[in-house]
Amino acid sequence: MISVILIEPQFEGNIGAIARSMKNFGFSNLILVNPKCELGNETRCRAKHANDIIDKAKIVKRFPKMDYLIGTTCRTGNDYNIPRNPITPKELKKIIPSKGKIGIVFGRESDGLSNEEIAKCDFLVKIPTNTKYASMNLSHAVDIILYELSGLENNITPISDAEKKQLMKLLDQAMKKMEFATKEKKDTQRLVWKKMISKSFLSKREAYALMGFFKKLL
Amino acid sequence: MISVILIEPQFEGNIGAIARSMKNFGFSNLILVNPKCELGNETRCRAKHANDIIDKAKIVKRFPKMDYLIGTTCRTGNDYNIPRNPITPKELKKIIPSKGKIGIVFGRESDGLSNEEIAKCDFLVKIPTNTKYASMNLSHAVDIILYELSGLENNITPISDAEKKQLMKLLDQAMKKMEFATKEKKDTQRLVWKKMISKSFLSKREAYALMGFFKKLL
Repeated sequence: MISVILIEPQFEGNIGAIARSMKNFGFSNLILVNPKCELGNETRCRAKHANDIIDKAKIVKRFPKMDYLIGTTCRTGNDYNIPRNPITPKELKKIIPSKGKIGIVFGRESDGLSNEEIAKCDFLVKIPTNTKYASMNLSHAVDIILYELSGLENNITPISDAEKKQLMKLLDQAMKKMEFATKEKKDTQRLVWKKMISKSFLSKREAYALMGFFKKLL
Repeated sequence: MISVILIEPQFEGNIGAIARSMKNFGFSNLILVNPKCELGNETRCRAKHANDIIDKAKIVKRFPKMDYLIGTTCRTGNDYNIPRNPITPKELKKIIPSKGKIGIVFGRESDGLSNEEIAKCDFLVKIPTNTKYASMNLSHAVDIILYELSGLENNITPISDAEKKQLMKLLDQAMKKMEFATKEKKDTQRLVWKKMISKSFLSKREAYALMGFFKKLL
């Protein structure tokens, strides 16, 4: 089940437009983190026939916990900036399953997601835009991601966040036995492994195999 | 060169949002046919860094002429309704060249394109949406089409509208020599040929070959 998570949205019209897009593409779970606007007339008016999505939207104070959190951004780093190295919506469509607790996280209209928020995400997706003007309207960005993700066919249930953490713990134990010159090199390994494990949306069977690999190293 | 053509747009905010999307995806030609709203503050504000596109938007009274006019709709017919039988944005991306005078036509926010307007288009494109709620916000529909059409790689110049008409004239002459039971059957042939020739975005060389085929029939 894919949820749309908006971090501190600022304009109520956008929230309504997003609800409408969600209904257009068959999504219904909307989570608003610490919204900076009301859900008033403009939200209702822009949502049109999707007011049921506004009615059952969850309003929360903190960054929610999910099995997979996929951040969105228009600002990316080069190859060496691992956390800010994104995939495209079309690539996301190829790997994402329809099951599991998955949240797509969208930042503020004014300045997107902070580095701290991006660090909480498993990996990033970026819509390919013209380099001269990359910043999109929030509701339009949501619309394109949902358009790409509608009608997913992969029905495998990916491992949960707890199981991902178990894998990471085994990795840490294995790395203790391995020799890395600096803490930095170890941290880079962790980042790469975390992204790789998340982007793989492993099944339980696959995760057990990977655990077996780590255990061999111990 | 691909133009975005809006037929009688009603809400000025949408026009601004569309200009922004156009700049995000590298398009610049905006044509407004008989707009029902002003291009005021809200347009300017929603366009953000794409006000240059608003500045040079063409405002016209009539349905413009182009070599290729591609209509958009959320209401489609079944297989037997030839004019309302659409392709998807992903299919459009595969066939559309970056050259030639091509217009993508979007209808009113309230009720889209009329049957007469659709008849003026060469063929239709429809964004695949949930059957329970197919009607999208205008600027979101434009956004998805432009997202799909950004970065086209096919640089062949397709034949012009005049050349398409020349082909259709030869078809009419050929059909006179052929026996069709009713006028209706002939009209269906014309419709199918018109769509087929348009969707093929033929090069001059290909069009000459097709002309040769029709001339053989004469």
